[in-house]
Amino acid sequence: MTYCVAMRLRAGLLFASDTRTNAGIDHIASFRKMYQFQIPHQREIVVLTAGNLATTQSVMSVLNQRLHGDGEHLLNVPSLYDAAALLGRTLKEIIARDSHDYNGGVDFGANMLIGGQILGEGPRLFHVYPQGNFIEATEDTPYFQIGESKYGKPIIDRVVRYETTPLDEAAKCTLVSFDSTIQSNLSVGLPIDMLMLRANQFEMAMKPPHRIGRDDPYFQALRAGWSEGLRRVFDNLPNEPWFDE
Amino acid sequence: MTYCVAMRLRAGLLFASDTRTNAGIDHIASFRKMYQFQIPHQREIVVLTAGNLATTQSVMSVLNQRLHGDGEHLLNVPSLYDAAALLGRTLKEIIARDSHDYNGGVDFGANMLIGGQILGEGPRLFHVYPQGNFIEATEDTPYFQIGESKYGKPIIDRVVRYETTPLDEAAKCTLVSFDSTIQSNLSVGLPIDMLMLRANQFEMAMKPPHRIGRDDPYFQALRAGWSEGLRRVFDNLPNEPWFDE
Repeated sequence: MTYCVAMRLRAGLLFASDTRTNAGIDHIASFRKMYQFQIPHQREIVVLTAGNLATTQSVMSVLNQRLHGDGEHLLNVPSLYDAAALLGRTLKEIIARDSHDYNGGVDFGANMLIGGQILGEGPRLFHVYPQGNFIEATEDTPYFQIGESKYGKPIIDRVVRYETTPLDEAAKCTLVSFDSTIQSNLSVGLPIDMLMLRANQFEMAMKPPHRIGRDDPYFQALRAGWSEGLRRVFDNLPNEPWFDE
Repeated sequence: MTYCVAMRLRAGLLFASDTRTNAGIDHIASFRKMYQFQIPHQREIVVLTAGNLATTQSVMSVLNQRLHGDGEHLLNVPSLYDAAALLGRTLKEIIARDSHDYNGGVDFGANMLIGGQILGEGPRLFHVYPQGNFIEATEDTPYFQIGESKYGKPIIDRVVRYETTPLDEAAKCTLVSFDSTIQSNLSVGLPIDMLMLRANQFEMAMKPPHRIGRDDPYFQALRAGWSEGLRRVFDNLPNEPWFDE
Protein backbone atom coordinates (compact mmCIF):
# COMPACT_ATOMS: atom_id res chain seq x y z
CA MET A 1 0.00 0.00 0.00
CA THR A 2 0.86 3.63 0.10
CA TYR A 3 0.22 6.74 2.10
CA CYS A 4 0.29 10.18 0.46
CA VAL A 5 -0.85 13.56 1.78
CA ALA A 6 -1.05 16.92 0.07
CA MET A 7 -2.19 20.22 1.58
CA ARG A 8 -3.07 23.56 0.06
CA LEU A 9 -2.80 26.27 2.72
CA ARG A 10 -2.69 30.04 2.48
CA ALA A 11 1.05 29.72 3.14
CA GLY A 12 1.62 27.31 0.26
CA LEU A 13 1.54 23.68 -0.71
CA LEU A 14 2.90 20.56 0.96
CA PHE A 15 3.30 17.10 -0.59
CA ALA A 16 4.43 13.92 1.14
CA SER A 17 4.51 10.27 0.15
CA ASP A 18 5.92 7.05 1.50
CA THR A 19 8.01 4.80 -0.75
CA ARG A 20 6.90 1.26 0.03
CA THR A 21 5.24 -0.80 -2.66
CA ASN A 22 4.25 -4.40 -2.31
CA ALA A 23 3.38 -6.17 -5.47
CA GLY A 24 2.68 -9.50 -3.84
CA ILE A 25 3.76 -10.77 -0.46
CA ASP A 26 7.37 -11.57 -1.37
CA HIS A 27 7.99 -8.51 -3.45
CA ILE A 28 8.28 -5.52 -1.15
CA ALA A 29 10.28 -2.69 -2.59
CA SER A 30 10.73 1.06 -2.54
CA PHE A 31 9.46 3.17 -5.41
CA ARG A 32 9.18 6.87 -5.74
CA LYS A 33 5.57 8.05 -5.69
CA MET A 34 6.31 11.77 -6.09
CA TYR A 35 6.95 13.40 -9.46
CA GLN A 36 7.86 17.02 -10.24
CA PHE A 37 7.29 19.01 -13.42
CA GLN A 38 8.73 22.49 -13.46
CA ILE A 39 9.68 25.56 -15.44
CA PRO A 40 11.73 27.82 -13.17
CA HIS A 41 9.86 30.99 -12.13
CA GLN A 42 6.80 29.90 -14.15
CA ARG A 43 5.30 26.64 -13.03
CA GLU A 44 5.73 23.93 -10.46
CA ILE A 45 3.55 20.82 -10.62
CA VAL A 46 3.78 17.86 -8.26
CA VAL A 47 2.02 14.51 -8.69
CA LEU A 48 1.59 11.88 -5.96
CA THR A 49 0.41 8.38 -6.85
CA ALA A 50 -1.29 5.47 -5.08
CA GLY A 51 -2.68 2.25 -6.45
CA ASN A 52 -1.60 -0.25 -9.09
CA LEU A 53 2.13 0.31 -9.66
CA ALA A 54 2.03 -0.71 -13.33
CA THR A 55 -0.71 1.85 -13.90
CA THR A 56 0.94 4.70 -12.02
CA GLN A 57 4.35 4.13 -13.62
CA SER A 58 2.81 3.97 -17.10
CA VAL A 59 0.83 7.15 -16.52
CA MET A 60 3.96 9.00 -15.43
CA SER A 61 6.00 7.60 -18.36
CA VAL A 62 3.37 8.67 -20.85
CA LEU A 63 3.09 12.14 -19.30
CA ASN A 64 6.88 12.48 -19.47
CA GLN A 65 7.13 11.29 -23.08
CA ARG A 66 4.50 13.76 -24.18
CA LEU A 67 6.50 16.67 -22.77
CA HIS A 68 8.53 16.48 -25.98
CA GLY A 69 5.57 16.35 -28.37
CA ASP A 70 3.41 18.99 -29.97
CA GLY A 71 0.22 18.19 -28.06
CA GLU A 72 -1.01 19.28 -24.68
CA HIS A 73 1.32 18.37 -21.82
CA LEU A 74 2.03 19.32 -18.21
CA LEU A 75 4.49 22.06 -19.15
CA ASN A 76 2.15 23.85 -21.54
CA VAL A 77 -1.37 23.47 -20.10
CA PRO A 78 -2.66 26.93 -19.20
CA SER A 79 -3.93 26.08 -15.69
CA LEU A 80 -3.71 23.50 -12.92
CA TYR A 81 -7.31 22.60 -13.73
CA ASP A 82 -6.20 21.59 -17.22
CA ALA A 83 -3.28 19.69 -15.71
CA ALA A 84 -5.71 17.69 -13.54
CA ALA A 85 -7.95 17.02 -16.53
CA LEU A 86 -4.95 15.86 -18.57
CA LEU A 87 -3.79 13.58 -15.75
CA GLY A 88 -7.33 12.17 -15.44
CA ARG A 89 -7.56 11.45 -19.18
CA THR A 90 -4.14 9.79 -19.20
CA LEU A 91 -5.00 7.66 -16.17
CA LYS A 92 -8.25 6.51 -17.77
CA GLU A 93 -6.42 5.76 -21.03
CA ILE A 94 -3.82 3.54 -19.32
CA ILE A 95 -6.38 1.68 -17.21
CA ALA A 96 -8.50 1.04 -20.30
CA ARG A 97 -5.49 -0.14 -22.29
CA ASP A 98 -4.17 -2.49 -19.61
CA SER A 99 -7.43 -4.01 -18.44
CA HIS A 100 -8.91 -4.43 -21.91
CA ASP A 101 -8.27 -8.03 -22.87
CA TYR A 102 -7.41 -9.83 -19.70
CA ASN A 103 -7.47 -8.52 -16.19
CA GLY A 104 -7.19 -11.73 -14.16
CA GLY A 105 -9.15 -10.21 -11.28
CA VAL A 106 -6.55 -7.48 -10.74
CA ASP A 107 -7.60 -3.95 -9.85
CA PHE A 108 -5.84 -1.64 -12.30
CA GLY A 109 -7.10 1.48 -10.51
CA ALA A 110 -5.00 4.28 -9.09
CA ASN A 111 -5.65 7.54 -7.29
CA MET A 112 -3.47 10.57 -7.80
CA LEU A 113 -2.99 13.98 -6.27
CA ILE A 114 -1.81 16.83 -8.47
CA GLY A 115 -1.04 20.31 -7.23
CA GLY A 116 1.23 23.24 -7.66
CA GLN A 117 1.14 26.70 -9.12
CA ILE A 118 1.20 28.07 -12.65
CA LEU A 119 2.13 31.72 -13.12
CA GLY A 120 -1.09 33.72 -13.43
CA GLU A 121 -3.12 31.77 -10.89
CA GLY A 122 -2.83 30.81 -7.22
CA PRO A 123 -1.71 27.47 -5.82
CA ARG A 124 -4.21 24.67 -6.49
CA LEU A 125 -4.57 21.03 -5.54
CA PHE A 126 -6.69 18.23 -7.04
CA HIS A 127 -7.51 14.60 -6.25
CA VAL A 128 -7.86 12.58 -9.47
CA TYR A 129 -9.91 9.36 -9.28
CA PRO A 130 -9.35 6.15 -11.29
CA GLN A 131 -12.43 7.14 -13.29
CA GLY A 132 -10.51 10.20 -14.50
CA ASN A 133 -12.68 12.79 -12.81
CA PHE A 134 -11.36 14.93 -9.97
CA ILE A 135 -12.11 17.24 -7.05
CA GLU A 136 -10.30 20.37 -5.91
CA ALA A 137 -9.14 21.25 -2.39
CA THR A 138 -10.92 24.25 -0.88
CA GLU A 139 -10.41 26.44 2.16
CA ASP A 140 -12.83 24.23 4.08
CA THR A 141 -11.06 21.03 3.02
CA PRO A 142 -7.46 22.05 2.54
CA TYR A 143 -5.93 18.58 2.30
CA PHE A 144 -6.27 15.26 0.48
CA GLN A 145 -4.95 11.83 1.33
CA ILE A 146 -4.67 8.74 -0.86
CA GLY A 147 -3.75 5.18 0.06
CA GLU A 148 -3.82 4.10 3.72
CA SER A 149 -5.37 7.35 4.82
CA LYS A 150 -7.38 6.59 7.92
CA TYR A 151 -4.78 5.99 10.63
CA GLY A 152 -3.20 9.38 10.04
CA LYS A 153 -6.37 11.41 9.49
CA PRO A 154 -7.35 12.34 13.08
CA ILE A 155 -4.22 14.40 13.78
CA ILE A 156 -4.56 16.34 10.52
CA ASP A 157 -8.21 17.05 11.28
CA ARG A 158 -7.23 18.38 14.68
CA VAL A 159 -4.35 20.60 13.55
CA VAL A 160 -4.49 21.83 9.97
CA ARG A 161 -6.44 25.01 9.05
CA TYR A 162 -6.18 26.71 5.66
CA GLU A 163 -5.82 30.26 6.97
CA THR A 164 -3.56 29.83 9.95
CA THR A 165 -1.32 26.77 9.61
CA PRO A 166 2.23 27.72 8.57
CA LEU A 167 4.17 25.29 6.37
CA ASP A 168 6.60 24.17 9.08
CA GLU A 169 3.67 23.22 11.31
CA ALA A 170 1.99 21.47 8.38
CA ALA A 171 5.21 19.51 7.84
CA LYS A 172 5.35 18.57 11.52
CA CYS A 173 1.72 17.43 11.43
CA THR A 174 2.33 15.45 8.25
CA LEU A 175 5.26 13.59 9.79
CA VAL A 176 3.22 12.79 12.92
CA SER A 177 0.45 11.55 10.63
CA PHE A 178 2.96 9.31 8.83
CA ASP A 179 4.25 8.04 12.16
CA SER A 180 0.74 6.97 13.25
CA THR A 181 0.21 5.25 9.90
CA ILE A 182 3.54 3.45 9.94
CA GLN A 183 2.96 2.28 13.54
CA SER A 184 -0.37 0.69 12.63
CA ASN A 185 0.19 -0.53 9.08
CA LEU A 186 3.14 -2.56 7.90
CA SER A 187 2.47 -1.80 4.26
CA VAL A 188 3.43 1.87 4.66
CA GLY A 189 7.16 2.38 5.12
CA LEU A 190 10.01 4.85 5.32
CA PRO A 191 11.61 6.80 3.76
CA ILE A 192 9.14 9.64 3.24
CA ASP A 193 9.50 12.11 0.39
CA MET A 194 8.36 15.61 1.35
CA LEU A 195 8.22 18.78 -0.69
CA MET A 196 6.88 22.23 0.17
CA LEU A 197 6.16 25.18 -2.07
CA ARG A 198 5.55 28.60 -0.64
CA ALA A 199 2.68 30.40 -2.36
CA ASN A 200 3.82 32.67 -5.22
CA GLN A 201 7.53 31.95 -4.61
CA PHE A 202 8.50 30.25 -7.82
CA GLU A 203 12.18 30.42 -6.90
CA MET A 204 11.57 27.44 -4.64
CA ALA A 205 10.78 25.48 -7.75
CA MET A 206 14.20 23.93 -8.15
CA LYS A 207 14.53 22.48 -4.65
CA PRO A 208 14.43 18.70 -4.70
CA PRO A 209 12.09 16.89 -2.33
CA HIS A 210 13.44 16.22 1.14
CA ARG A 211 13.84 12.49 1.80
CA ILE A 212 13.23 11.47 5.40
CA GLY A 213 14.57 8.09 6.45
CA ARG A 214 14.78 6.09 9.66
CA ASP A 215 17.86 7.98 10.80
CA ASP A 216 16.56 11.48 10.16
CA PRO A 217 17.15 13.26 13.49
CA TYR A 218 14.10 15.53 13.19
CA PHE A 219 11.77 12.61 12.44
CA GLN A 220 13.31 10.63 15.33
CA ALA A 221 12.73 13.57 17.68
CA LEU A 222 9.12 13.88 16.54
CA ARG A 223 8.43 10.15 16.92
CA ALA A 224 9.88 10.00 20.41
CA GLY A 225 8.31 13.27 21.56
CA TRP A 226 4.91 12.36 20.16
CA SER A 227 4.92 8.87 21.61
CA GLU A 228 6.01 10.02 25.09
CA GLY A 229 3.68 13.02 24.97
CA LEU A 230 0.64 10.94 23.99
CA ARG A 231 1.39 8.47 26.72
CA ARG A 232 1.72 11.28 29.27
CA VAL A 233 -1.54 12.90 28.20
CA PHE A 234 -3.27 9.53 28.27
CA ASP A 235 -1.95 8.70 31.74
CA ASN A 236 -3.08 12.08 33.04
CA LEU A 237 -6.65 11.66 31.82
CA PRO A 238 -8.97 10.70 34.66
CA ASN A 239 -9.94 7.08 35.27
CA GLU A 240 -13.58 6.35 35.89
CA PRO A 241 -14.34 4.09 38.87
CA TRP A 242 -16.33 1.58 36.82
CA PHE A 243 -16.47 -1.11 39.46
CA ASP A 244 -17.76 -0.65 42.97
CA GLU A 245 -15.72 -2.35 45.60
CA MET B 1 -20.97 2.24 9.32
CA THR B 2 -20.04 1.03 12.72
CA TYR B 3 -17.15 0.90 15.12
CA CYS B 4 -16.79 -1.93 17.63
CA VAL B 5 -13.86 -2.91 19.83
CA ALA B 6 -13.39 -5.89 22.12
CA MET B 7 -10.39 -6.69 24.29
CA ARG B 8 -9.33 -9.77 26.19
CA LEU B 9 -6.85 -8.82 28.89
CA ARG B 10 -5.54 -10.68 31.90
CA ALA B 11 -7.86 -8.48 33.96
CA GLY B 12 -10.95 -9.38 31.96
CA LEU B 13 -12.94 -8.53 28.89
CA LEU B 14 -14.14 -5.23 27.48
CA PHE B 15 -16.72 -4.70 24.74
CA ALA B 16 -17.75 -1.41 23.14
CA SER B 17 -19.87 -0.47 20.15
CA ASP B 18 -21.31 2.65 18.65
CA THR B 19 -25.00 2.77 17.76
CA ARG B 20 -25.22 4.54 14.40
CA THR B 21 -26.52 2.71 11.37
CA ASN B 22 -27.08 4.21 7.99
CA ALA B 23 -29.10 2.17 5.63
CA GLY B 24 -28.92 4.68 2.79
CA ILE B 25 -28.20 8.34 2.92
CA ASP B 26 -31.56 9.50 4.28
CA HIS B 27 -31.99 6.72 6.78
CA ILE B 28 -29.61 7.30 9.65
CA ALA B 29 -30.71 5.69 12.85
CA SER B 30 -29.49 4.21 16.10
CA PHE B 31 -29.48 0.48 16.59
CA ARG B 32 -28.00 -1.60 19.32
CA LYS B 33 -25.00 -3.61 18.14
CA MET B 34 -24.25 -5.31 21.46
CA TYR B 35 -26.05 -8.44 22.62
CA GLN B 36 -25.72 -10.35 25.90
CA PHE B 37 -26.43 -13.98 26.66
CA GLN B 38 -26.07 -15.02 30.25
CA ILE B 39 -26.68 -17.57 32.95
CA PRO B 40 -25.82 -15.97 36.30
CA HIS B 41 -22.65 -17.38 37.86
CA GLN B 42 -22.17 -19.75 34.91
CA ARG B 43 -21.75 -18.03 31.60
CA GLU B 44 -21.59 -14.59 30.08
CA ILE B 45 -21.43 -14.18 26.32
CA VAL B 46 -21.37 -10.86 24.46
CA VAL B 47 -21.75 -10.39 20.71
CA LEU B 48 -20.86 -7.20 18.77
CA THR B 49 -22.00 -6.79 15.17
CA ALA B 50 -20.92 -4.78 12.13
CA GLY B 51 -22.07 -4.93 8.53
CA ASN B 52 -25.39 -5.43 6.80
CA LEU B 53 -28.10 -4.59 9.35
CA ALA B 54 -30.63 -7.05 7.92
CA THR B 55 -28.05 -9.81 8.25
CA THR B 56 -26.92 -8.95 11.79
CA GLN B 57 -30.48 -8.53 13.09
CA SER B 58 -31.55 -11.83 11.52
CA VAL B 59 -28.58 -13.67 12.97
CA MET B 60 -29.34 -12.34 16.44
CA SER B 61 -33.07 -13.14 16.10
CA VAL B 62 -32.33 -16.70 15.01
CA LEU B 63 -29.80 -17.18 17.82
CA ASN B 64 -32.39 -15.90 20.30
CA GLN B 65 -35.20 -18.09 18.96
CA ARG B 66 -33.05 -21.18 19.19
CA LEU B 67 -32.45 -20.59 22.90
CA HIS B 68 -35.84 -22.16 23.46
CA GLY B 69 -35.30 -25.20 21.23
CA ASP B 70 -33.70 -28.57 21.82
CA GLY B 71 -30.65 -28.03 19.61
CA GLU B 72 -27.33 -26.37 20.27
CA HIS B 73 -27.60 -22.75 21.36
CA LEU B 74 -25.55 -20.07 23.08
CA LEU B 75 -26.72 -21.04 26.55
CA ASN B 76 -25.81 -24.70 26.23
CA VAL B 77 -22.66 -24.85 24.08
CA PRO B 78 -19.83 -26.28 26.19
CA SER B 79 -17.20 -23.66 25.30
CA LEU B 80 -16.70 -20.22 23.81
CA TYR B 81 -15.07 -21.92 20.85
CA ASP B 82 -18.32 -23.74 20.17
CA ALA B 83 -20.21 -20.46 20.62
CA ALA B 84 -18.02 -18.86 17.92
CA ALA B 85 -18.52 -21.82 15.61
CA LEU B 86 -22.30 -21.65 16.15
CA LEU B 87 -22.32 -17.90 15.45
CA GLY B 88 -20.26 -18.48 12.28
CA ARG B 89 -22.63 -21.19 11.01
CA THR B 90 -25.66 -19.03 11.71
CA LEU B 91 -24.11 -16.03 9.98
CA LYS B 92 -23.29 -18.09 6.90
CA GLU B 93 -26.80 -19.56 6.90
CA ILE B 94 -28.46 -16.13 6.94
CA ILE B 95 -26.18 -14.66 4.26
CA ALA B 96 -26.81 -17.69 2.03
CA ARG B 97 -30.58 -17.45 2.57
CA ASP B 98 -30.79 -13.71 1.90
CA SER B 99 -28.45 -13.46 -1.07
CA HIS B 100 -29.68 -16.60 -2.78
CA ASP B 101 -32.16 -15.46 -5.43
CA TYR B 102 -31.55 -11.76 -5.87
CA ASN B 103 -28.89 -9.63 -4.30
CA GLY B 104 -29.14 -6.44 -6.37
CA GLY B 105 -25.48 -5.69 -5.89
CA VAL B 106 -25.88 -5.44 -2.12
CA ASP B 107 -23.19 -6.80 0.20
CA PHE B 108 -24.95 -9.05 2.72
CA GLY B 109 -21.77 -9.59 4.69
CA ALA B 110 -21.23 -8.91 8.38
CA ASN B 111 -18.39 -9.26 10.85
CA MET B 112 -18.99 -10.16 14.47
CA LEU B 113 -17.04 -10.33 17.69
CA ILE B 114 -18.03 -12.88 20.30
CA GLY B 115 -16.42 -13.16 23.70
CA GLY B 116 -17.07 -13.92 27.33
CA GLN B 117 -16.52 -16.69 29.77
CA ILE B 118 -18.13 -20.05 30.37
CA LEU B 119 -17.58 -21.71 33.74
CA GLY B 120 -14.73 -24.20 33.39
CA GLU B 121 -12.59 -22.17 31.01
CA GLY B 122 -10.97 -18.73 30.99
CA PRO B 123 -12.24 -15.63 29.22
CA ARG B 124 -12.05 -15.92 25.42
CA LEU B 125 -12.68 -13.64 22.45
CA PHE B 126 -13.24 -14.41 18.74
CA HIS B 127 -13.64 -12.47 15.50
CA VAL B 128 -16.15 -14.21 13.21
CA TYR B 129 -15.91 -13.43 9.49
CA PRO B 130 -18.77 -13.32 6.96
CA GLN B 131 -17.45 -16.64 5.62
CA GLY B 132 -18.28 -18.18 8.99
CA ASN B 133 -14.71 -18.95 10.04
CA PHE B 134 -13.08 -17.12 12.94
CA ILE B 135 -9.88 -16.22 14.77
CA GLU B 136 -9.19 -16.00 18.50
CA ALA B 137 -7.53 -13.17 20.41
CA THR B 138 -4.18 -14.08 21.96
CA GLU B 139 -1.83 -12.48 24.44
CA ASP B 140 0.11 -10.96 21.54
CA THR B 141 -3.02 -9.59 19.89
CA PRO B 142 -5.40 -8.96 22.75
CA TYR B 143 -8.02 -6.91 20.88
CA PHE B 144 -10.21 -6.97 17.80
CA GLN B 145 -11.97 -4.17 15.97
CA ILE B 146 -14.73 -4.37 13.37
CA GLY B 147 -16.24 -1.63 11.20
CA GLU B 148 -14.43 1.69 10.86
CA SER B 149 -11.39 0.44 12.70
CA LYS B 150 -8.46 2.40 11.36
CA TYR B 151 -8.89 5.88 12.84
CA GLY B 152 -8.97 4.50 16.36
CA LYS B 153 -6.28 1.84 16.01
CA PRO B 154 -3.08 3.83 16.71
CA ILE B 155 -4.01 4.73 20.31
CA ILE B 156 -4.93 1.13 21.15
CA ASP B 157 -1.66 -0.11 19.66
CA ARG B 158 0.23 2.36 21.81
CA VAL B 159 -1.54 1.65 25.11
CA VAL B 160 -3.10 -1.79 25.46
CA ARG B 161 -1.03 -4.77 26.68
CA TYR B 162 -2.54 -8.11 27.68
CA GLU B 163 -0.60 -8.55 30.90
CA THR B 164 -0.55 -5.08 32.34
CA THR B 165 -3.52 -3.02 31.19
CA PRO B 166 -6.22 -2.80 33.87
CA LEU B 167 -9.86 -2.62 32.80
CA ASP B 168 -10.36 1.02 33.76
CA GLU B 169 -7.39 2.01 31.59
CA ALA B 170 -8.68 -0.18 28.77
CA ALA B 171 -12.02 1.62 29.05
CA LYS B 172 -10.30 5.00 28.93
CA CYS B 173 -8.30 3.94 25.88
CA THR B 174 -11.43 2.60 24.19
CA LEU B 175 -13.27 5.88 24.69
CA VAL B 176 -10.32 7.87 23.31
CA SER B 177 -10.26 5.50 20.34
CA PHE B 178 -13.99 6.13 19.79
CA ASP B 179 -13.41 9.88 20.06
CA SER B 180 -10.76 9.78 17.28
CA THR B 181 -13.08 7.70 15.11
CA ILE B 182 -16.10 9.93 15.67
CA GLN B 183 -14.02 13.07 14.93
CA SER B 184 -12.90 11.72 11.57
CA ASN B 185 -15.90 9.71 10.39
CA LEU B 186 -19.48 10.92 10.36
CA SER B 187 -20.86 7.42 9.99
CA VAL B 188 -19.82 6.47 13.53
CA GLY B 189 -21.90 8.14 16.22
CA LEU B 190 -22.77 8.34 19.88
CA PRO B 191 -24.03 6.89 22.14
CA ILE B 192 -21.48 4.16 22.85
CA ASP B 193 -22.44 0.93 24.59
CA MET B 194 -19.67 -0.39 26.83
CA LEU B 195 -19.51 -3.51 28.95
CA MET B 196 -16.68 -4.96 31.03
CA LEU B 197 -16.36 -8.38 32.62
CA ARG B 198 -13.69 -9.09 35.17
CA ALA B 199 -12.03 -12.44 34.64
CA ASN B 200 -13.62 -15.27 36.67
CA GLN B 201 -16.09 -12.91 38.37
CA PHE B 202 -19.39 -14.22 37.14
CA GLU B 203 -21.30 -12.05 39.57
CA MET B 204 -20.76 -9.15 37.15
CA ALA B 205 -22.88 -11.04 34.70
CA MET B 206 -26.09 -9.22 35.43
CA LYS B 207 -24.80 -5.67 35.00
CA PRO B 208 -26.29 -4.01 31.93
CA PRO B 209 -23.94 -2.30 29.49
CA HIS B 210 -23.07 1.27 30.29
CA ARG B 211 -24.46 3.65 27.67
CA ILE B 212 -22.28 6.71 27.05
CA GLY B 213 -23.95 9.65 25.33
CA ARG B 214 -22.95 13.15 24.37
CA ASP B 215 -23.66 14.47 27.86
CA ASP B 216 -21.74 11.82 29.76
CA PRO B 217 -19.43 13.85 32.04
CA TYR B 218 -16.59 11.31 31.97
CA PHE B 219 -16.60 11.11 28.18
CA GLN B 220 -16.74 14.91 27.96
CA ALA B 221 -13.75 15.19 30.28
CA LEU B 222 -11.80 12.65 28.22
CA ARG B 223 -12.60 14.37 24.92
CA ALA B 224 -11.59 17.78 26.19
CA GLY B 225 -8.50 16.55 28.02
CA TRP B 226 -7.34 14.46 25.07
CA SER B 227 -7.90 17.20 22.53
CA GLU B 228 -6.12 19.86 24.61
CA GLY B 229 -3.36 17.45 25.59
CA LEU B 230 -2.68 16.37 21.99
CA ARG B 231 -2.58 19.96 20.90
CA ARG B 232 -0.16 20.83 23.70
CA VAL B 233 2.13 17.90 22.88
CA PHE B 234 2.00 18.80 19.20
CA ASP B 235 2.78 22.46 19.86
CA ASN B 236 5.74 21.48 22.05
CA LEU B 237 7.29 19.26 19.40
CA PRO B 238 10.18 21.02 17.67
CA ASN B 239 9.71 22.75 14.34
CA GLU B 240 12.29 22.12 11.66
CA PRO B 241 13.63 25.21 9.88
CA TRP B 242 12.76 23.92 6.40
CA PHE B 243 13.32 27.20 4.61
CA ASP B 244 16.48 29.22 4.77
CA GLU B 245 16.01 32.93 5.14
